[in-house]
Amino acid sequence: MSSGEDDLIARYFRPLATDPGAFGLVDDAAILKGASGDLVVTTDAIVEGVHFLPDDPAHTVARKALRVNLSDLAAKGATPAGFVLTLALRVVDHNWLAEFAHALGEDATAFACPLLGGDTVSTPGPLTISVTAFGRVPAGCMVRRSGATAGDVVLVTGTIGDAGLGLSLLKHGLQTGSEAAQQGLIARYRVPEPRLGIAAAVRDHASAAMDVSDGLAGDLAKLCKASGVTAEIRLEQLPLSPAVRAGLARKLTTIEDLISGGDDYEVLCTVPERRLAAFLEAAAAQRVKTTRIGVIRAGDAPPVFMSAAGDAVTLKRASYSHF
Amino acid sequence: MSSGEDDLIARYFRPLATDPGAFGLVDDAAILKGASGDLVVTTDAIVEGVHFLPDDPAHTVARKALRVNLSDLAAKGATPAGFVLTLALRVVDHNWLAEFAHALGEDATAFACPLLGGDTVSTPGPLTISVTAFGRVPAGCMVRRSGATAGDVVLVTGTIGDAGLGLSLLKHGLQTGSEAAQQGLIARYRVPEPRLGIAAAVRDHASAAMDVSDGLAGDLAKLCKASGVTAEIRLEQLPLSPAVRAGLARKLTTIEDLISGGDDYEVLCTVPERRLAAFLEAAAAQRVKTTRIGVIRAGDAPPVFMSAAGDAVTLKRASYSHF
Repeated sequence: MSSGEDDLIARYFRPLATDPGAFGLVDDAAILKGASGDLVVTTDAIVEGVHFLPDDPAHTVARKALRVNLSDLAAKGATPAGFVLTLALRVVDHNWLAEFAHALGEDATAFACPLLGGDTVSTPGPLTISVTAFGRVPAGCMVRRSGATAGDVVLVTGTIGDAGLGLSLLKHGLQTGSEAAQQGLIARYRVPEPRLGIAAAVRDHASAAMDVSDGLAGDLAKLCKASGVTAEIRLEQLPLSPAVRAGLARKLTTIEDLISGGDDYEVLCTVPERRLAAFLEAAAAQRVKTTRIGVIRAGDAPPVFMSAAGDAVTLKRASYSHF
Repeated sequence: MSSGEDDLIARYFRPLATDPGAFGLVDDAAILKGASGDLVVTTDAIVEGVHFLPDDPAHTVARKALRVNLSDLAAKGATPAGFVLTLALRVVDHNWLAEFAHALGEDATAFACPLLGGDTVSTPGPLTISVTAFGRVPAGCMVRRSGATAGDVVLVTGTIGDAGLGLSLLKHGLQTGSEAAQQGLIARYRVPEPRLGIAAAVRDHASAAMDVSDGLAGDLAKLCKASGVTAEIRLEQLPLSPAVRAGLARKLTTIEDLISGGDDYEVLCTVPERRLAAFLEAAAAQRVKTTRIGVIRAGDAPPVFMSAAGDAVTLKRASYSHF
């Protein structure tokens, strides 16, 4: 009497439901045990042809679906507690599902974020994966977008622009010249690295934070707007990987593309000067690279991006938008 | 510098984000304040052409998206605490969005389940709405599927089969004869009534519970399987509305269709005999109709459905399945 959905769930996803609150995915709901702190909730969906390419392997799609949410938790200073998954499938491809579930399980274990439940539905449209992830913070300690004040230092983790350039290489069939660089950039597009190592440092020291998912320029503008401030960013201080620098040199991308492209999934945060040393020390202890890229200023104008020559760069498009 | 998504969210959904933990939807995450109890999490997606019809009005689609999740919370004995929404849109139709958001906001208020956050993405495919809803229960008190034991009474809320017949009328252009009955059945398909009034009674007295979303027969089979029991159901005791009885008389449906069709969104539960009087009293106090339809038996065979003549009815298909 069991249905096709139940069989799919039992076969592919039950092995991932290791948390007792998931009840082996046989119930209609899961439980997050009460803790003394707050529960942070975030949700992000990825759609075939929009957030990932139809040719992307199942294992990278799985990792991306979870990691874009873990990236939000990291930026909010939260420790992962679990996630629920909605999978809208056009076809049931058992090879695809096995690879997807295996990779999702590996990431769930690696990031200590167990699958708690979900829903599997059929769709006549593109494969769509929606994840809602939960994280814990001490009561009142979630880091918001809105806490930046004039004088705070603006920092970003990792490097910017790799994923956007990787997508561009895939879409336009471009070559960077180095196969290793090529694959590295594509990997950054397909499988973001959630900066969970920095969550505690962000929680303890940052005045505001968010993850960079739709382009640094646009996301910084959102943070500034929420905080009622503006910012001055030094473009020569942007953390760029050797592969991106090579792409710039070969005119495969521009600095404007790099800061307005999506899929970086780095943490953007602002830290008061007096907290900066402690923040940098905590980040270094977790081996998360952070780079100071500018400063928060009073005002309500959009953030200004300054070239090395001291000119303000005007952006045609600040960030990726779906609509 | 703001993006199209942000404008959509600000325009249509910010007015719904009345809970302080939602931060007016301007942050990347929301907070559920820690409570002493457990947080129940459930997620259900609805897809155009699968769970609702392309012609269904925006306001009924909105209500259905939320209510199918509230129905799960009710069956788990939980009190709604909030929800997050993922909206995958093919087109931006402002009239549609305004109607959708208005109805969603009305339901969020009516059911005390505030919007906490979400994600709005573009899709080349059908409109897809995924909701993850949260509810609170005292620690350890979520009612599971797995607690039924032999001798427990099987009960169901409301009436069974209305929504399935409503869908059938819509899909096949059938007429029941009475316009009021016709519209009533269609309304049951489009806008389920989550039985939140019964949540406390379920929590206090039921040994097992789930909502009936994919057909009574199949869902009861799932409950029995999770509990390691079987059940004997008396078909003549099934709660049927006058409109469904008329449909049966006109041969627009069959009893098999009624118990294997989807979209009932009633609560199915099992209650030990010694708790039955208290359960019925608590349900009646909330004006939620409940009907005793059978009894749990020891064994692992699929549930048996007995006709008034005492014959076991064999079902060709126990429930709706996506795959």
